[in-house]
Amino acid sequence: MAKHSKDRGLGERLRVPPGEPVDLSARDPRATPGGPKDKKAAPADLAAMGGRLGELQERLWAAGTAGDRRRVLLVLQGMDTSGKGGTVKHVIGLFNPSGCRIKAFKAPTPEERRHPFLWRIRQALPRAGELGIFDRSHYEDVLIARVRELAPATEIGRRYNKINNFEQALADDGVTLVKCFLHISFDEQRDRLLERLDRPDKHWKFNPGDIDERALWPAYQHAYELALERCSTPQAPWYVVPADRKWYRNWAVSRLLLEHLEALDPQYPKADFDVAECRARLLSGDRGTSEGRTPGA
Amino acid sequence: MAKHSKDRGLGERLRVPPGEPVDLSARDPRATPGGPKDKKAAPADLAAMGGRLGELQERLWAAGTAGDRRRVLLVLQGMDTSGKGGTVKHVIGLFNPSGCRIKAFKAPTPEERRHPFLWRIRQALPRAGELGIFDRSHYEDVLIARVRELAPATEIGRRYNKINNFEQALADDGVTLVKCFLHISFDEQRDRLLERLDRPDKHWKFNPGDIDERALWPAYQHAYELALERCSTPQAPWYVVPADRKWYRNWAVSRLLLEHLEALDPQYPKADFDVAECRARLLSGDRGTSEGRTPGA
Repeated sequence: MAKHSKDRGLGERLRVPPGEPVDLSARDPRATPGGPKDKKAAPADLAAMGGRLGELQERLWAAGTAGDRRRVLLVLQGMDTSGKGGTVKHVIGLFNPSGCRIKAFKAPTPEERRHPFLWRIRQALPRAGELGIFDRSHYEDVLIARVRELAPATEIGRRYNKINNFEQALADDGVTLVKCFLHISFDEQRDRLLERLDRPDKHWKFNPGDIDERALWPAYQHAYELALERCSTPQAPWYVVPADRKWYRNWAVSRLLLEHLEALDPQYPKADFDVAECRARLLSGDRGTSEGRTPGA
Repeated sequence: MAKHSKDRGLGERLRVPPGEPVDLSARDPRATPGGPKDKKAAPADLAAMGGRLGELQERLWAAGTAGDRRRVLLVLQGMDTSGKGGTVKHVIGLFNPSGCRIKAFKAPTPEERRHPFLWRIRQALPRAGELGIFDRSHYEDVLIARVRELAPATEIGRRYNKINNFEQALADDGVTLVKCFLHISFDEQRDRLLERLDRPDKHWKFNPGDIDERALWPAYQHAYELALERCSTPQAPWYVVPADRKWYRNWAVSRLLLEHLEALDPQYPKADFDVAECRARLLSGDRGTSEGRTPGA
């Protein structure tokens, strides 16, 4: 996987090196590596990226119409309030929505529970030319499932390998995975939960159960460390995105997508028809034709 | 349907009055009724609407999380190059993509052909709180199906009623339908097809078959007139959007969506939990807790 070993700019800085242990407490959620100077400078930087992202997405889509099977899958994970939804709104809002396939995974339904944990994931994968976005993902099955003991420990232990095999198969099939852990601090989560409680227009985003989950913060951090450690692979690395500053988070995820799309470098397909002949036919067919009259009459 | 009989602003101007005959040749595709002064003024007007559209969409979504079944379905129809895809890009790009469910209908697959024509439509309907967007729709089954004689004439004749009954049921179930016919001129289509031929980065959008379809322009206009006439109902009216000017088209579809969302006036749900108690529990649970330590220890 030579494409992942060469310098990838921001990707190189945020990537979890495959095979190395992960200590989240050593990574500052307020850091802004490689980012805009400050919050004020961020919107212009993001807007400048928007045009380039839009063009690359159109090229990916166009190539897909001509048999190029490649697609991109952005996986967003993070604690409650880490900004998965906000990232979709601000980052994916830069793209043409027609080419995006967004899936937010909730607690599995009874039907989903009757299938292996990757079953519902497969249903939601992006098609050729698409940008897929997962708001939560198959990683929930080694995160909340581990912390809340929703499955036997031996089964959870096996899931890391199953995930790696699954993602290897996706990569082999033309899927570029961009897995982002939105890393917020314990204090930042408190402030964001308080804001949801203090603003009536945010009450709908709050669930009293969020407080119970927060009480398990250390166990969740540990579960994330294990997942990042065991499932950051050369073909599907994890990126730890500092996310206490929303403007940096949006910039960084956009930048990661840009770097991956530039590496893919999708091309507009060549015409599979005779352009000059079509041009002549279009103009000659119109001769004597006008609205309301039968063409050629 | 009192809400449709009172003044709806742009909706009132573009609506096809139920029960009246439709003459598309009498409607100017270059007109800009109610729109911005000119192309230069359009982006600012559109951006100003963006914030309001985003807020109303969030309220619709939030209400949906609390049992409000209402949703919006934008149906886009129009001749090749009329700008269905461009409308999705520029208008739906103003919304939060998480709350949008976009479906582009192509020629039916063999499986879809084995079912009644509305079957595949039902699969793609927006869920509570969502904004659904159809790029083409069940109307293809009375448009290309009529012009290309893909079904017996008697069957096509029955479909108008089936469509009206279907849309009535949707309206009864909380779906606000916004059906837009993007009305372009014969000359404008030629210019847009030529542009696709003259720009290598647009070749992928061109299909030689488009020229054959264009030769049937009068038959298509007639099929559209019939569909608009028979299926513009009080509960699901058709709007004829002049679409030779892209800036007006984008503005008008945005404005129609705004008017409908304002009429729906969705509300943030009230908290179904004790806000003060949650606030106290959140703050007290944190006492003595910090990252890496077990909460409460």
